Amino acid sequence: MRRKYYLEDLPLDAAWQRFQAALDRVEAGRALPAERVSLAEAGGRITAEPFWARLSSPHYHAAAMDGVAVRAAETVGATETTPCQLVIGQQARWIDTGDPLPLEMDAVIMAEHVQTLDDERIEIRAAVAPWHHVRSLGEDMVATELVVPENHRLRPVDLGALAAAGHADVAVYRRPRVAIIPTGAELVTVEAAQTAALQPGAIIEFNSLMLAGQVAEWGGSATRQSPVPDRREVLREAITAAVNEYDIVVVNAGSSAGAEDYTAAVLAELGEVAVHGVAIRPGHPLILAVVQGKPVLGLPGYPVSTVLTAELFLRSLIYRMQGQTAPRRPTVNAIMSRKVLSPMGEDEFLRVTLGQVDDRVVATPLIRGAGIVSSLVRADGLVQIPRFSEGVHAGAPVTVDLLRDPAELASTIVAIGSHDLALDLLASHMRHIVPDARLSSANVGSLGGLMALKRRDAHLAGSHLLDEETGVYNHSFVARLLPDEDILLVNLAYREQGLIVLPDNPQQLHSLADLTHPEVRFVNRQKGSGTRVLLDYHLKQNGLHTEQIAGYDREEFTHMAVAAAVLSGTATVGLGIRAAARALGLAFIPLFKERYDLVVPRRHWESVRLTPLRQTLESDAYREAVAALGGYDVSDMGKLM
Amino acid sequence: MRRKYYLEDLPLDAAWQRFQAALDRVEAGRALPAERVSLAEAGGRITAEPFWARLSSPHYHAAAMDGVAVRAAETVGATETTPCQLVIGQQARWIDTGDPLPLEMDAVIMAEHVQTLDDERIEIRAAVAPWHHVRSLGEDMVATELVVPENHRLRPVDLGALAAAGHADVAVYRRPRVAIIPTGAELVTVEAAQTAALQPGAIIEFNSLMLAGQVAEWGGSATRQSPVPDRREVLREAITAAVNEYDIVVVNAGSSAGAEDYTAAVLAELGEVAVHGVAIRPGHPLILAVVQGKPVLGLPGYPVSTVLTAELFLRSLIYRMQGQTAPRRPTVNAIMSRKVLSPMGEDEFLRVTLGQVDDRVVATPLIRGAGIVSSLVRADGLVQIPRFSEGVHAGAPVTVDLLRDPAELASTIVAIGSHDLALDLLASHMRHIVPDARLSSANVGSLGGLMALKRRDAHLAGSHLLDEETGVYNHSFVARLLPDEDILLVNLAYREQGLIVLPDNPQQLHSLADLTHPEVRFVNRQKGSGTRVLLDYHLKQNGLHTEQIAGYDREEFTHMAVAAAVLSGTATVGLGIRAAARALGLAFIPLFKERYDLVVPRRHWESVRLTPLRQTLESDAYREAVAALGGYDVSDMGKLM
Repeated sequence: MRRKYYLEDLPLDAAWQRFQAALDRVEAGRALPAERVSLAEAGGRITAEPFWARLSSPHYHAAAMDGVAVRAAETVGATETTPCQLVIGQQARWIDTGDPLPLEMDAVIMAEHVQTLDDERIEIRAAVAPWHHVRSLGEDMVATELVVPENHRLRPVDLGALAAAGHADVAVYRRPRVAIIPTGAELVTVEAAQTAALQPGAIIEFNSLMLAGQVAEWGGSATRQSPVPDRREVLREAITAAVNEYDIVVVNAGSSAGAEDYTAAVLAELGEVAVHGVAIRPGHPLILAVVQGKPVLGLPGYPVSTVLTAELFLRSLIYRMQGQTAPRRPTVNAIMSRKVLSPMGEDEFLRVTLGQVDDRVVATPLIRGAGIVSSLVRADGLVQIPRFSEGVHAGAPVTVDLLRDPAELASTIVAIGSHDLALDLLASHMRHIVPDARLSSANVGSLGGLMALKRRDAHLAGSHLLDEETGVYNHSFVARLLPDEDILLVNLAYREQGLIVLPDNPQQLHSLADLTHPEVRFVNRQKGSGTRVLLDYHLKQNGLHTEQIAGYDREEFTHMAVAAAVLSGTATVGLGIRAAARALGLAFIPLFKERYDLVVPRRHWESVRLTPLRQTLESDAYREAVAALGGYDVSDMGKLM
Repeated sequence: MRRKYYLEDLPLDAAWQRFQAALDRVEAGRALPAERVSLAEAGGRITAEPFWARLSSPHYHAAAMDGVAVRAAETVGATETTPCQLVIGQQARWIDTGDPLPLEMDAVIMAEHVQTLDDERIEIRAAVAPWHHVRSLGEDMVATELVVPENHRLRPVDLGALAAAGHADVAVYRRPRVAIIPTGAELVTVEAAQTAALQPGAIIEFNSLMLAGQVAEWGGSATRQSPVPDRREVLREAITAAVNEYDIVVVNAGSSAGAEDYTAAVLAELGEVAVHGVAIRPGHPLILAVVQGKPVLGLPGYPVSTVLTAELFLRSLIYRMQGQTAPRRPTVNAIMSRKVLSPMGEDEFLRVTLGQVDDRVVATPLIRGAGIVSSLVRADGLVQIPRFSEGVHAGAPVTVDLLRDPAELASTIVAIGSHDLALDLLASHMRHIVPDARLSSANVGSLGGLMALKRRDAHLAGSHLLDEETGVYNHSFVARLLPDEDILLVNLAYREQGLIVLPDNPQQLHSLADLTHPEVRFVNRQKGSGTRVLLDYHLKQNGLHTEQIAGYDREEFTHMAVAAAVLSGTATVGLGIRAAARALGLAFIPLFKERYDLVVPRRHWESVRLTPLRQTLESDAYREAVAALGGYDVSDMGKLM
C-alpha cells in the first residue's frame, strides 16, 4: 500500500510571495551582518555601507611630470626668440612626477622643454600658465566625497579608489553560508564510482557539486555534506544541525511525497513549510520552509529540476542576503524552430540551443526530461512558456534568457541532422585550432537535418541518406528538398554499419537475413534516419520483408540508444555504427560501408564563421583522430562530393 | 642635468605583434601545463583536454516515477470499464524513482494510477506503452560521447555532467601566476596611511591592488610584492627572482625614461625589451619584454594608465596562457554629448558615463587625467578614438565598450549640473531603499546642467541659479533655456554659502566687502556656476566691483577645489558651501542662504526610473542625514517649487 501524492500547484509568483511572507514574519532571509575585510580580500564583495573619502587624493599639490617647478608669473614673456633664464634653487627646482610642489611654486615645465645652461641656470622658451602640469590637492577625490555607495559590488578599480581615499578595509556583507544536504541511500560519490563498478540502482551524487558551483557564482559559500540516507530521524538531525550552523539549508532531494520522501514532514515538525509544490516544469515537487529563522529549501532530485529551482529561488535569496537584487539575465529574441506543446497550468522552462543563421536567431528545443543533465550543458538559453499557454508554434517569436555570452553565440556553428562521433571529435578539435570556436550539434537524423537547412535553422547537416533507386548518397535528397539552394556536399568519412550484438554474438547473427530468425528481437532506428533508409534499401535488395523482423517497429533515435537496448537485453540486435558498439563493449558485425557527408549551403561554407571547421577538416590531427576511432575511412575527408 | 625622453610611439597593433613575435621566438606566453583538480575545485577553470563519458548515464534502465514496474504487453486492453488485475511480485513490482527496472519489466505505471486491491493484487485502468516512465540506459549520456570539449570554461552544470559521466577530476590549465612588483621609494601602504599622517610626496600604493583584482577576474593568481625602491640593483634582483618563480611579471611603474626610471634598462640587461612606448593615451610609457622565457610588463604608474594597459596587454596574455581568447566586451551605440579633441597619432581611450535618456544612449566624457582613479570608478564605458582621428563631434555616434552590466545602465538616473554633497548622500540612500538603483552625477555647474537637459543628456540637473533681477532661484533660467519643456523644480534643500578660510580666519574676513582688502587672494568658481552667479549678484547689491578683488579671475569647477586652494595656501579665501570647508578642516563664515533645486522634466519625474529617487526624497532617514551635514535647511525637501 502506497501513499498518494498531495502536492500543491502554486503559481511561481504566489510561491515566492508566500515564502517571502514566511521569511518576513521571523525577519529571516535578510541582508546578513557586515564583516570588515582588507581591500586585498574585498574584490567581488558587496559593500554594507557607503564609503566616503577619508583623505584627499592627491593629498598635496603634486608634479604631474618630470621637469622643473617654477612660478608661472616669472615665465611670462618667454618665447623662442626671447628665452627666459631661471636660477636653479631660487626660481626653479628640478622635480619628479609625484613630488610635492615647493610651496612658493605653482607650475611645472616638462624636462624636454628645459635647456640646461650650467649647474645654476636653466633657460625656457615658452611661458607657462599657473597650475600647468600640476595635480592639485583633491584633483581626484576630496575628503568627504562619496567613493562607493552601499550595496555596491567591488571591482578592481573600486579597491584602488578606496585605498587612495585612505581606506585599508571595508565593511561588506558576510557571504551567505549554504549547507547542501544530499539525501538518498542509493547515492555514491564520483570518487567511489571510479574505483569500483557501479551497481544498478546506485546513483552518482553530483547535484551538490552543481549547487555548490551555483552558490559560489552568486556570492555565497557552500558546504557539501555527506549524503544522508532516507531515514526520518537521520534527516531531522542533519537539518537541525545545519540550521544551527548555516544561513541557508538546501535538502536535495526527497522533496516530493513518495514513500521515502520525508523532507516535507520533517520540516513541518521543525518549522514552517510555506510552500510544497510549485506549478513549474521541471521542478514541481519543491519545498520552501523556514526553520529557526533560517530559510530551508527542499529541491527536487532530478538534476535539471535541482539546477532550475535553485536558479528560481536560491539565487534570489543569496543575492538578497547580500543586500542585492539578483541581476536579470540578458535576453535575446529568437524564432522557435519547432512546435512545442506545453501543459496548461504550469510554467515550463524549456532549454533551447540557439543558432544565428543568416539574419535570424533560431531557438531549437532540447530534450525535456528532468534527468537529462547534458541538456543543461548544451543549452544556450531558457524559454519560459507561461502556465496559461498551451505551447509555442513553429516560427513563433520567443524571448530567450541567455545562459551564454552573446559573443559565444556569434561564433557558434549549428549542425542539425544525423549524429556521429566524428562530429563530437570535430567539435573538440576545432577548439584546439580556434579556442573560442563552438559547434552545437542536435541529433534529429539525416532527413531532419535537411529539413532544418530548408527552414534555415542550421549552418550544416550531417547526412548519410542512400537513394534506394540510384544507390547514391545524399544528392537526390538534397536536390529534392533544397532545390533553390546552392548546396555543397563535403565528405566527412565513410563508415561501417553493421549488426550490434552482445559480446560473442550469442545468436550467431551474420547477415540481414539472420534478423528473421524467430528468437531475434530487433531494435530499429526512427524513420528518416540514414540507418533506417540503409536498412530498408538492403532489405529490399535482399528480398526481405519488414514483417519478418520482430522488433522492426521499435524505434530509437540514436546509434547509442540502439546499442544500449542490446546491452540491457531489451533487444538482441540492432543496426548501427561500430563506435556505438564499442562504446558499450558490444560486438559488431560489419555489413555495409556508407558515406557520411556534411550538407552545407555554399554561403555558410564560405563564411568566416565556418573557417575553424574548414581548417579542422584539413588538419592531419583531426583526420588521424577519426581514423583511430576504428571503422572509418577518411580518404575523402573534406572533399566536395 | 636631466636625461631626455626617448620613447617609441608604436601603434597599438604593431606593439602587440612585436611582443607576440618576441614571445614566440622563445615559445613563451603559451598555454600553461595542465593540472588535475577535483570537480569540487574545478568551477571556472578551463579544460586542457576534451572529456568523454566514461560511464553511460543512467548506467541502467531506471524507474522515472514512483509506482509499479510492469510488462507493457500485460496491460494491453486495460480501460476504465475493463480494468486489469496484476499480481504483485510476478506481474508488477513496486518501485521508487531511480530504482533499477526489474529485468523482465519494461514500463512503469505511476503510483496514483494504481488501485491496490489487497496485499497481492493491484488493478490498473489504462494500458501503458513499453518504456513509459523509464529512463533508459544512456538516455542522458552514453559512454564515449563528448561531455565537454577542451578550452571550455567549466560551469556548475558541466561539473554535474562530468560527474555523471564518471569523472572525479579534470585536467585544467594551471592558473597563470603573476608577480606584481610596485616600485618607488615614495610608496606607502594604505595600512600605514591609516595610522600616521601622510607626508607630502608620500603616495599610497594601490595600483597593485587593482592589478591583483584584474588578474583574478581574468583567471590568474596574483602575488603583490612589497614595493621596491627606485634603485637599479634592487630592481634587477627583484625582477630576476620573480621571473624564476612566476609565469608573468608586472613592474609598476618606472616604465618611462625619467631620471629614476630604470625598468627598461634593467629589462634590456636581463632579456629582450620588445616594446618601449606605445602610441596610446593614457598609457604611453609601456614596456613589453621577455626575460628567461617569461613575459615581463612594465606598466606606467598613473593608476588609469596602469589599469588600461593591463586591460590591453596583460588580459590577453592571461587568457592566452589558459588556452583562451579574451572575450570581447559587450558594446553599446551612443551619442557623444560633448565635442572631444584628441591628439593625432595616438589611440585615445576615453572614459565616459552613459545615460539612457528617452530613446538615446548618451556618452559623456569624464575628466581625462591619467591620475584620476575616480574616473574609472564612475566610468560606464570606454570610447576608443583612433590615432588617425582628431576627435569626436558633439552629437556624433560612438561605439562604447561597456564596463557595466547593460541592465545597470537601464536603471541609472543621470544627474548633470551643480554638485552637492547631498546628491552623494542621495545616491547612497537610494541604494538603501532600492539596492540596484544608481545615480550617476556629473559636475558641470548649474547652467551646464540646464544645457544638458536641453540636449536631453540627463534626467535631472541640480541647480541654484539666482536671478539677479528678481532675486528668485532657477525659475527664470528654466523658462528661458527650456521654454518647450514641462519642467518641475523639486527642492532638495536650502544651504549656506559663505567664505572658506584657513582655521581661525587669519585675515579676519567677515563680509564680501572684506574681499577687496589688498592682502586677500580670492579663488573663484567658473562662469555659469550657481555660486558665481550668487557672488556677482551680491557684489552688485553691495556696490562692489570685480576688479577690486585679487584672484576674481582664477576659476575652479567645484566647491571642493576652492577649499583645496585655500588649504594649500594658493588662495586665502573662496566662496562655497559649509560642507566643503568642513571636509578639509577649514573655517566657514556663513554669508547667504540659497535654494538648491533638482530641475526635472515632468516625463522623467513621473517615470519608473525615478521612483527610487522620489522615494528617497520622502524618506526620513535621508532628510535627517542631509540635516546632519550641517548648513542645510531641509524643510522644503521634495516640495515642488
